[in-house]
Amino acid sequence: MPYELYYWDGLQGRGEFVRLALEQAQAPYVDIARGGDDEGQGESAITALMNSKTAPFIPFAPPFLKDGELIVSQTANILLYLGPKLGLAPKGDQAYIVHSLQLTIADMVTEAHDTHHPIATGQYYEDQTAPAKARATDFLRHRLPKFMRYFERVLAQNPDGERHLAGDSLTYADLSMFQLIEGLRYAFPRATARFALNYPRLTALRDAVAALPNIAAYLASERRLPFNESGIFRHYPELDMTGH
Amino acid sequence: MPYELYYWDGLQGRGEFVRLALEQAQAPYVDIARGGDDEGQGESAITALMNSKTAPFIPFAPPFLKDGELIVSQTANILLYLGPKLGLAPKGDQAYIVHSLQLTIADMVTEAHDTHHPIATGQYYEDQTAPAKARATDFLRHRLPKFMRYFERVLAQNPDGERHLAGDSLTYADLSMFQLIEGLRYAFPRATARFALNYPRLTALRDAVAALPNIAAYLASERRLPFNESGIFRHYPELDMTGH
Repeated sequence: MPYELYYWDGLQGRGEFVRLALEQAQAPYVDIARGGDDEGQGESAITALMNSKTAPFIPFAPPFLKDGELIVSQTANILLYLGPKLGLAPKGDQAYIVHSLQLTIADMVTEAHDTHHPIATGQYYEDQTAPAKARATDFLRHRLPKFMRYFERVLAQNPDGERHLAGDSLTYADLSMFQLIEGLRYAFPRATARFALNYPRLTALRDAVAALPNIAAYLASERRLPFNESGIFRHYPELDMTGH
Repeated sequence: MPYELYYWDGLQGRGEFVRLALEQAQAPYVDIARGGDDEGQGESAITALMNSKTAPFIPFAPPFLKDGELIVSQTANILLYLGPKLGLAPKGDQAYIVHSLQLTIADMVTEAHDTHHPIATGQYYEDQTAPAKARATDFLRHRLPKFMRYFERVLAQNPDGERHLAGDSLTYADLSMFQLIEGLRYAFPRATARFALNYPRLTALRDAVAALPNIAAYLASERRLPFNESGIFRHYPELDMTGH
């Protein structure tokens, strides 16, 4: 039975971190909100499950994954669950290292989101542009370098070599790091103009992931939606800044 | 060898979620930044580990836990690691349900933090009071009820009974829910005045955790620092509001 991925249609969003793992492993999955005759039907399935009065476990928000009867929610948790099944996680205690990296990626994803929604998730960006500019400025000046210097050091100090964030083979955290870098470069092209210079190991990791045959095929497919201003990483030129 | 908990002294912070699990299980642990002759020494140990140029794995931020040579970081990940060892996590797939709840608690903790720091973590609250008021208002009006209604439903729909968030016995997520509720009540006494009325199951869970002998003893001890305005949950009366 294929995995069922529940995530909103029309944007990459947090669902994309799960998709990249499924695609790399060539795992059979159905993207529930996409591809049906009636687009709205898939979205209804998401809402129906979240609103269920009888389900033994209800997720707070998409993405969530159905594997048979089990529902796993929270992006990092889905990857924790899928990792060993898809051959994208190490065994033993190293699994906790990979998961901590994934959770730190998730923290940065939230902060990237909050650059355009610093006040209220439920309101439009256009209604919070002034605080968004202030938060984006702080993010680009302080938070992005702090996170990225950290991840660059994680690569540099990996005893198994700097090709992966942890251990000597590909993990879901490497795939998520690719997505994070892609998103940041899309949202902030000016601020990340010197990304490759500042973070050579992360750039090499990003390039290596992009060149994986299954990932390359996915990125070239129609299943990979382009980044857009409905997602987490949004390109609002007024929030971007030059150099850092 | 006792667990070593690395977290800043002087506040509960995210370290408290880990402490509650260790205390409930009566696990031997050392709170590295506390209790030494020289208070600064413990904090230096935190910084030294984070700044190490040679450690095979470096955490992004406290809290982190050392168990022998292993360093586990990220609050929810530490609890994932400790859960089975402390008898505070279910076996099998149910572990992923508990972890998803913990991650949703973590998301709400971050949002509670951002009510007083909506623009820049590295700046003072006093320098971001206007956006803080806007974000706190949205948090209390929309986010807090959304999260709490969700958790109340999780309890109501737990097939094993509404005494626990998942399964039929105490987990680390139950302990963290206690801490989240305590923190919200401390920070927003007016907005949460009718908490018990609105969320009777969550209130019962909170009360049950507080009455656990090991937790009650911990709460009465000097090891339990009071909430204060250095932590995540801060009581700034101007951010609080009446009723909801």
